[in-house]
Amino acid sequence: MTFRTGRHFLQIPGPTNVPDRVLRAMSAPTLDHRGPEFADLARRVLDALKPVFGTSGPVVVYPSSGTGAWEAALVNTLSPGDRVLCFETGHFASLWREMAQSLGLEVEFVPGDWRHGASPEAAAERLDADIAHRIKAVCVVHNETSTGVTSRVPEIRAALDAADHPALLLVDTVSSLGSLEYRHDAWGVDVTVTGSQKGLMLPPGLGFNAVSEKALDASRAARLPRSFWDWTPVIDANEAGFFPYTPATNLLYGLDEALRMLAEEGLEQVWARHARHAAATRAAVRGWGLDVLCADEREYSGSLTAVLLPDGRDADAVRKIVLERFDMSLGTGLGRLAGKVFRIGHLGHFNDLTLAGTLAGVQMGLELAGHSVGPDGLAAALDHLRTN
Amino acid sequence: MTFRTGRHFLQIPGPTNVPDRVLRAMSAPTLDHRGPEFADLARRVLDALKPVFGTSGPVVVYPSSGTGAWEAALVNTLSPGDRVLCFETGHFASLWREMAQSLGLEVEFVPGDWRHGASPEAAAERLDADIAHRIKAVCVVHNETSTGVTSRVPEIRAALDAADHPALLLVDTVSSLGSLEYRHDAWGVDVTVTGSQKGLMLPPGLGFNAVSEKALDASRAARLPRSFWDWTPVIDANEAGFFPYTPATNLLYGLDEALRMLAEEGLEQVWARHARHAAATRAAVRGWGLDVLCADEREYSGSLTAVLLPDGRDADAVRKIVLERFDMSLGTGLGRLAGKVFRIGHLGHFNDLTLAGTLAGVQMGLELAGHSVGPDGLAAALDHLRTN
Amino acid sequence: MTFRTGRHFLQIPGPTNVPDRVLRAMSAPTLDHRGPEFADLARRVLDALKPVFGTSGPVVVYPSSGTGAWEAALVNTLSPGDRVLCFETGHFASLWREMAQSLGLEVEFVPGDWRHGASPEAAAERLDADIAHRIKAVCVVHNETSTGVTSRVPEIRAALDAADHPALLLVDTVSSLGSLEYRHDAWGVDVTVTGSQKGLMLPPGLGFNAVSEKALDASRAARLPRSFWDWTPVIDANEAGFFPYTPATNLLYGLDEALRMLAEEGLEQVWARHARHAAATRAAVRGWGLDVLCADEREYSGSLTAVLLPDGRDADAVRKIVLERFDMSLGTGLGRLAGKVFRIGHLGHFNDLTLAGTLAGVQMGLELAGHSVGPDGLAAALDHLRTN
Amino acid sequence: MTFRTGRHFLQIPGPTNVPDRVLRAMSAPTLDHRGPEFADLARRVLDALKPVFGTSGPVVVYPSSGTGAWEAALVNTLSPGDRVLCFETGHFASLWREMAQSLGLEVEFVPGDWRHGASPEAAAERLDADIAHRIKAVCVVHNETSTGVTSRVPEIRAALDAADHPALLLVDTVSSLGSLEYRHDAWGVDVTVTGSQKGLMLPPGLGFNAVSEKALDASRAARLPRSFWDWTPVIDANEAGFFPYTPATNLLYGLDEALRMLAEEGLEQVWARHARHAAATRAAVRGWGLDVLCADEREYSGSLTAVLLPDGRDADAVRKIVLERFDMSLGTGLGRLAGKVFRIGHLGHFNDLTLAGTLAGVQMGLELAGHSVGPDGLAAALDHLRTN
Repeated sequence: MTFRTGRHFLQIPGPTNVPDRVLRAMSAPTLDHRGPEFADLARRVLDALKPVFGTSGPVVVYPSSGTGAWEAALVNTLSPGDRVLCFETGHFASLWREMAQSLGLEVEFVPGDWRHGASPEAAAERLDADIAHRIKAVCVVHNETSTGVTSRVPEIRAALDAADHPALLLVDTVSSLGSLEYRHDAWGVDVTVTGSQKGLMLPPGLGFNAVSEKALDASRAARLPRSFWDWTPVIDANEAGFFPYTPATNLLYGLDEALRMLAEEGLEQVWARHARHAAATRAAVRGWGLDVLCADEREYSGSLTAVLLPDGRDADAVRKIVLERFDMSLGTGLGRLAGKVFRIGHLGHFNDLTLAGTLAGVQMGLELAGHSVGPDGLAAALDHLRTN
Repeated sequence: MTFRTGRHFLQIPGPTNVPDRVLRAMSAPTLDHRGPEFADLARRVLDALKPVFGTSGPVVVYPSSGTGAWEAALVNTLSPGDRVLCFETGHFASLWREMAQSLGLEVEFVPGDWRHGASPEAAAERLDADIAHRIKAVCVVHNETSTGVTSRVPEIRAALDAADHPALLLVDTVSSLGSLEYRHDAWGVDVTVTGSQKGLMLPPGLGFNAVSEKALDASRAARLPRSFWDWTPVIDANEAGFFPYTPATNLLYGLDEALRMLAEEGLEQVWARHARHAAATRAAVRGWGLDVLCADEREYSGSLTAVLLPDGRDADAVRKIVLERFDMSLGTGLGRLAGKVFRIGHLGHFNDLTLAGTLAGVQMGLELAGHSVGPDGLAAALDHLRTN
Repeated sequence: MTFRTGRHFLQIPGPTNVPDRVLRAMSAPTLDHRGPEFADLARRVLDALKPVFGTSGPVVVYPSSGTGAWEAALVNTLSPGDRVLCFETGHFASLWREMAQSLGLEVEFVPGDWRHGASPEAAAERLDADIAHRIKAVCVVHNETSTGVTSRVPEIRAALDAADHPALLLVDTVSSLGSLEYRHDAWGVDVTVTGSQKGLMLPPGLGFNAVSEKALDASRAARLPRSFWDWTPVIDANEAGFFPYTPATNLLYGLDEALRMLAEEGLEQVWARHARHAAATRAAVRGWGLDVLCADEREYSGSLTAVLLPDGRDADAVRKIVLERFDMSLGTGLGRLAGKVFRIGHLGHFNDLTLAGTLAGVQMGLELAGHSVGPDGLAAALDHLRTN
Repeated sequence: MTFRTGRHFLQIPGPTNVPDRVLRAMSAPTLDHRGPEFADLARRVLDALKPVFGTSGPVVVYPSSGTGAWEAALVNTLSPGDRVLCFETGHFASLWREMAQSLGLEVEFVPGDWRHGASPEAAAERLDADIAHRIKAVCVVHNETSTGVTSRVPEIRAALDAADHPALLLVDTVSSLGSLEYRHDAWGVDVTVTGSQKGLMLPPGLGFNAVSEKALDASRAARLPRSFWDWTPVIDANEAGFFPYTPATNLLYGLDEALRMLAEEGLEQVWARHARHAAATRAAVRGWGLDVLCADEREYSGSLTAVLLPDGRDADAVRKIVLERFDMSLGTGLGRLAGKVFRIGHLGHFNDLTLAGTLAGVQMGLELAGHSVGPDGLAAALDHLRTN
């Protein structure tokens, strides 16, 4: 790679560009995690998290990845051999299925084409059929980071309600929380799983579980072995502003600052900003004569757009050119989408001109890779930005 | 608390004072964890970790606390109902025992008085008696952070060897690695567990497992459910410089810098520095007419010193005065030592004058709390520093 | 202003976007400016500055602005009542003239139209006419930050040589050094004046004088009062790596890092990069149907482009929209250009996609301000970037 | 030097240990110095400076060292050949005298022994004798950084008043402002000169002039050539939150934070803290059987203590040992005090335990250099800290 100057464009769908404010906050000296100053910080952060999840209940914070937070959701609520209903929405849903199986759960996996979200109709059908209530949890990836498709969680909830089914609703919001509209309490979610490195604008290293009363009840009977992930000692220690083991102090400093930024902007405005940037990005994709992977406009993702190339064209060749010539990272195609799509992240700490630079880089990269896309894509995106 | 000026003295036995160099390194922009620049970083860090553990085998890095790394050690090597041999060396050994029980293991717990390390004699006795080899692992806390006692790991190893016992040897080095002499390979340890926030001079947020061949073999048969903690996918992905889930990028930046610092100083010199500071601290404690909690001089810890107050005196009262008057955090007495001891951390990024300031603060705090300790403690410590 | 998210686009022609590496370097603890570690730093920085100026002679570093470095150039070389030849190339040349007058010098000011550089022909004429050698110094602004016009310094030197005129040649490179080709020794410059906040990629706060032998000789006879700016004690103290008064330590840390970055990229490559971005910017301006202020293509600036709006159109209205809607700072019209031009900085730590974002912001801002410029400007710029 | 670990002890009398908060604030991205956000910052900082100087008048901030601010005080108020009254209080007073001479002023220099402050009696005598009012300014160094002696400025003012003398009173507070009691308005000072790197807790790089109405009047008639240092354009531009040339943006960020810290602690408390630490330091010096250089207890400095060694003993040998063995920088003897004294800075961002570490280092260094000082010095200092 040639020498790079200027700022790298990190336009993968997460980790996202961490704000300078957050990086500076994280560089404060580490403090005593058993002292009064830490307790103030912890309580402030734990309170400020609630509105971001849309919950009045507890949010458990782990020093972990988002994947760790998935494991926490499962081991706290389920017992060996329990059946869970999952939906093949893409790569991350598939990984979650594998995790469930590794932990000794039985997975009912609704097949999918990786261009649609979790099907509320299929959910309804499976739940209705489960008269014995063998399904103990329904697992949905709210925003599939591998596809840029956003599942309609309230409709999955409605399916549960219509079937009068007692299964828990577990939702992965790794690439949606703090970017897309999300309401843990109002949507009747039992465990919301997320990580720090996307809409929360932090480096990776924190995992989260927002937990409903019903999930807490379930955790009392759940028999998957658990210790590190156990909610109860965390929630108990959090009362006083502490943790049962050493928390990731400096990431919590960053979280404190990031939550302040989200509050300053306002969640509704944050969601609107992401939706607007996503719409501009899709305008660009269409202007280039290419397809957005997401096949249902009700499920367009506000945080990333997966661009599908014509058959026989290598998406990774575009990514390579864009990285080498323009110092921008784009997301690769994952799993069965390898080589077929690239993904543009437009989430987190982001603005119009960074999107413009991003789309300019994609457009030039496509041309250089031999796609005669012309300038209309970027022009259409700018029209959208300018007039909305 | 009154307004604080100057630098806080963080003299708990970890988290330790993170070097400015490390904090600055951590504030670099987050990058693409699937890109070539990250792969270079990951390989460099994974290589540089090996000599610090004294191993030529793999070191698995988790986005987690040290406690998480304990769980990893257990779930990768053991099966439900397996028996493990633990030693009641203090609070953290007791927590590890609880974790093992929570995960479905059966713990044989050698009782202790919290003033000695794991007894090689007791180990020999239990192992010799275990003709059926029901004990699958021996768990030792190398340096008990709650007591300032360092167990003699090579003698435990010798007991295993003498008994020709196949049990794995799992060692917690959370408060010793990068501070005290430690040799994973040479000492025949199977899993070494540690965290980032002590001798590695980072904020908390990373957990580590150094893994022997024998442990890897054991992991193939182990049946405790595991997914997040599973070594295999991590070790496989690490080959190419990647991780199976999003790693804690910015902590890895810091680790890269911290490992550079350890290499610059030289591990032998790092160990000698800690030993020298510990000896100076004990000289101070004796100069004050107080007792070091550790009852066996072969087991004095180089990274912290627990100071035992006379019966009826409240150690937390001293800590409170020291925090409020002198802006220094000392370690509290944990578990059964609550109120009886305070702990002085002298590990990590540390030097003679910071130790002098630390001991001056303890001395003044003791006086203010009504202990007529006089000036001889600090004077003895300075004598030690000056003449060694 | 609405809430801002993402990174501000600081596209004024300086201060420029300071690299994160430089900001982090500046945040290291301040050290003893009389100690050995500082001396190492100072010598390293003073050496590394020389190639950037293209000199083998001394470079004097002041804790000051670039304006202070102008004053240093004058008071070290001239005496009360001395005549200096200046050229009305724009706002900063006019300020330099005023400074010379304030300090008691007599200024011969060659008038100009603010669209051309210093005229070598006019220089030749004035110098030829000055048979008595009353002109003691010729002052040229290499790159007029107010107009985006680069004077042809070698041709001014040629005029001095042709006239066999002994006047000193003083050159302001505030917005060109580290961005445009510049050669202090090869071009026969006597004092090169610059500041830290443009091509050197630092925050403002340092001023520089590169000094020829001839200028040093002149300083021995010069009689303008001087103390703070006096070269001699600085150059003398610099031998040992020190300064006669407290230097701006942390800015020097940043300078150390910035010079490392310039060396990594390579000066020739730095110059080529700036020229390429300038050409792309001019392509955009033409694509919008607007005029570049600079009227002579030999004098196009590589570091900034001033865009001239049609008569009656307010350039500051465009700037205001761009700042409020797109969080980008553009340069205002200065002096007689107020309201008539805006200036786009494309210098320092910069890259293709940031330029693309910048030009996208200008294009949208022009449209929103009622200029029907259409999308061709940005498209032309991207064509240039993609194919060069 | 051997490898250094832990934090360097920067105990020269400035630059001082910059708080982490300030370093972090300084690492924010540079912004447009002509934009609205900068104007807010500038106005906030300029307002917050006033109480620190004890003035309701303007404070002019230069991108410069404190020495530059001296030059500003002289060139704004005086004319060639003007007489100024200076006092030989130490090295910095001597440098100021040299500067005045270099700038074309005539200096009446009251001799001194470098162990006392400016003599109010001598001042009275000289002023009374100056019936023709040829003395245009009286220059006093409030706190002589080379000696640790604080001149009694109010008594100098009283001498001026008693003589009914119209001379301006110019005071250097480089090592006192923000540390020692100081009141520009109440004490009738005309120009207060300071720098950023001591009590203001910033890195070096900013110079300051607080300016009285009378000084402003004098500036209208003063004829020393000036341009960069001219108060008027700065004060005029400051009205709107701007500067006539590019200000040192990132140091201003730091100043903003440092002023916030001074306000949080409270100036009276800041002064008391410095006085207390100075008293403890003197107790140590006496406990070691050594002499404080300052010979008049009314003039003890709160910000530094110069320690006088017995005849024939080399103070720099002590400093060298302390630096190499204990990684602490102490101030060297300057000018005629070279080798005779070392100076302990106890100013700025500082606290009891850092002082304890500092004095422990000095005590050990003295012993190692062959001074049998024993432990009583540090013990006495700690007694003072503990009981006050």
